[in-house]
Amino acid sequence: MSKDFLNLISVEEAVKIAKSIVPVIGSEPVALEDAVGRVLSEDVHSDINIPGFDRSWKDGYAVSAAETVNATVSMPSMLKLTGRIPMGAGERMTMGAGECLNIPTGGQMPKGADAVVMVEYTDEVEGDVLIKRPVAPGENVVLEGEDFSEGELVFAEGRVLSASDIGGLAAVGASRVSVRKKPVVGIISTGIEIIPVDEKPKAGEVRDVNTYLCSAFAKKHGCIPKHLGIVRDDEKAMRDILRNAPAECDLILVSGGSSKDIKDVTARAVYSEGEVLAHGVMLAPGKPTIIGKIKDTPLIGIPGHPAATYMVLSVIVRHLLREMTGILKENESVVKVKLAESLPSEKGREEYVRVRITDENLAEPLFGKSGILNTLVKSDGVIRVPGGREGYEAGDEVEVFLW
Amino acid sequence: MSKDFLNLISVEEAVKIAKSIVPVIGSEPVALEDAVGRVLSEDVHSDINIPGFDRSWKDGYAVSAAETVNATVSMPSMLKLTGRIPMGAGERMTMGAGECLNIPTGGQMPKGADAVVMVEYTDEVEGDVLIKRPVAPGENVVLEGEDFSEGELVFAEGRVLSASDIGGLAAVGASRVSVRKKPVVGIISTGIEIIPVDEKPKAGEVRDVNTYLCSAFAKKHGCIPKHLGIVRDDEKAMRDILRNAPAECDLILVSGGSSKDIKDVTARAVYSEGEVLAHGVMLAPGKPTIIGKIKDTPLIGIPGHPAATYMVLSVIVRHLLREMTGILKENESVVKVKLAESLPSEKGREEYVRVRITDENLAEPLFGKSGILNTLVKSDGVIRVPGGREGYEAGDEVEVFLW
Repeated sequence: MSKDFLNLISVEEAVKIAKSIVPVIGSEPVALEDAVGRVLSEDVHSDINIPGFDRSWKDGYAVSAAETVNATVSMPSMLKLTGRIPMGAGERMTMGAGECLNIPTGGQMPKGADAVVMVEYTDEVEGDVLIKRPVAPGENVVLEGEDFSEGELVFAEGRVLSASDIGGLAAVGASRVSVRKKPVVGIISTGIEIIPVDEKPKAGEVRDVNTYLCSAFAKKHGCIPKHLGIVRDDEKAMRDILRNAPAECDLILVSGGSSKDIKDVTARAVYSEGEVLAHGVMLAPGKPTIIGKIKDTPLIGIPGHPAATYMVLSVIVRHLLREMTGILKENESVVKVKLAESLPSEKGREEYVRVRITDENLAEPLFGKSGILNTLVKSDGVIRVPGGREGYEAGDEVEVFLW
Repeated sequence: MSKDFLNLISVEEAVKIAKSIVPVIGSEPVALEDAVGRVLSEDVHSDINIPGFDRSWKDGYAVSAAETVNATVSMPSMLKLTGRIPMGAGERMTMGAGECLNIPTGGQMPKGADAVVMVEYTDEVEGDVLIKRPVAPGENVVLEGEDFSEGELVFAEGRVLSASDIGGLAAVGASRVSVRKKPVVGIISTGIEIIPVDEKPKAGEVRDVNTYLCSAFAKKHGCIPKHLGIVRDDEKAMRDILRNAPAECDLILVSGGSSKDIKDVTARAVYSEGEVLAHGVMLAPGKPTIIGKIKDTPLIGIPGHPAATYMVLSVIVRHLLREMTGILKENESVVKVKLAESLPSEKGREEYVRVRITDENLAEPLFGKSGILNTLVKSDGVIRVPGGREGYEAGDEVEVFLW
């Protein structure tokens, strides 16, 4: 820790560095009913043909299509009704020339039939069925294996399982599946002034908001938060926690104490216990961010003010969590809306501005003090002003990344 | 059950009826760390002023603004440095005329000071500080209660708690909060041909896909699924389950057996054990849907084919779950994309068409047999063609409701 000033890198560069140290996350088996939203860590193949037999997909009559070729309303084909096919029956029924069988949706096609005439186009008259419209071979029939054939790849490893996918997995008999583990995110809050949330702060003290911000954020992104405690500016305690963290965490988040001030224990502890890959990001609030490693476990040191913490979580840590969980598209809520007022910005400097979505569906920038907590609570998300442009005009369409 | 044909109602009407029988869901206390994504069921007020004391929000020097009025780089104001304010200190320090105190970000403002000069605009010279720029009263200071004042409403009942809200709640000391309970959704699968997922179907049998589709869907929408079992077309068993379900469920979903056929046990059991409010919806697949009640518990009878089941879940049940959970905006993923090919539709009939989002970000309609499971798995969502129009042209912008 030789320098007093930070070498600022861009947010893009910070994200790139953070992604380069993402650890490998293992797999675990889960019951199918618990797998929605999880990431498949194995290829799943169908263990059977689906359907397992030729099925009707309409209520009607199983026929030989050839015997309906000339059927019309005025000159119907007449077939002898020889029975009704029951649902769930194991034995396949048989019919002969000039015959038909009543069949329900999902019923097994009998031998001798190759199509189903919908009940709407028939009349039953004294043991015979009048067919009033021709059907083509295969019409209203789902063939064995047409949905999935035995051994066919149904889902590839890496898929984020939707509710409909769970249905697909049930069909192919995957009552348990292997999914990626939820990464464990260790969270440390630091600052001599920090007290637990259930205590009442005395003058000079503030409650530990950041542990909760970090855990809720980790949880929302599919991780398991693990509170490693509040460190009250005690460098030895911080170093002890950091040394032990890699054994139980996949990522370490430390909020507070990340500046290069003599008193900033986080920075000092990371410099001595691990490796600092970046210190300082062009992001306001959020400048004194640290990206580092303790052994092979990534660590993000986040400035202590909650508004800064949340900004760093949203624009940097989010990418790391997405890589770790494999959940790339989910929880990524972006809306395109028009800007309520113009937003000047210095060209060359990437900026992130918190905005509120108004009732008129406009993005209203929330200016004011960056350190104010209620701005965070009142805002709905953040917009990014790229370094290459001088802000936006009122009415310009912008992308809001919802919190 | 006197009629053989269904009186079809529109999807809109079906949703309206379903919403009219939504039950009241109670509250439960949860630890703050478990509250993200839950719906607040109480108003939360701040128990303290935040900040609890006048704080600096920059590193610099606490000064009396009046003593910096004429300060410039060439003619700086000179103030005597009388000490450094420590973080977290309970006792408020004092400074006199012509004096200043070094103060860190978050430090408590001393008596006698009303502003902070950022360290960047100062020089420290032998016990004195040169101030090179004037500051206004209040500059770089967050006043006691400026963020939230004691007793102020921070969040109103009904709010879906985001990760940043959890931080706000931590700040105001809400280490436990009252949230709406997760509704319990009872799920029954029916059909003589249905077997459990971990069994291998013999000819004529199919696996119970729908229980899994319904549970994953309920879970994704913030509910607790409860499997009530597979009923193999046994009306007495169905009636027993339906009679007991209201005691343990907030909503009952029954898949299969909802047609008006003589064999459709669901329809018969609901007609005799409860009340049928609607039977038949203009939705394909999904027509023979039942909306009813068993005692005061809403019941949706869903056609048994998985593709129909998922359609009814997505366009009808979803609205019910959203009303029950209070989670109105979340999990509602809609994307606006252009249609890959034209989509003819009969005017006057509302249609729902499954689509896949292509790599070129176009919505490609998936035609083909409605009963095919792999169409469901391959589709990303559904588009609605309103009754008032004759389909869409290729290139038209459509809204895709993602599964």
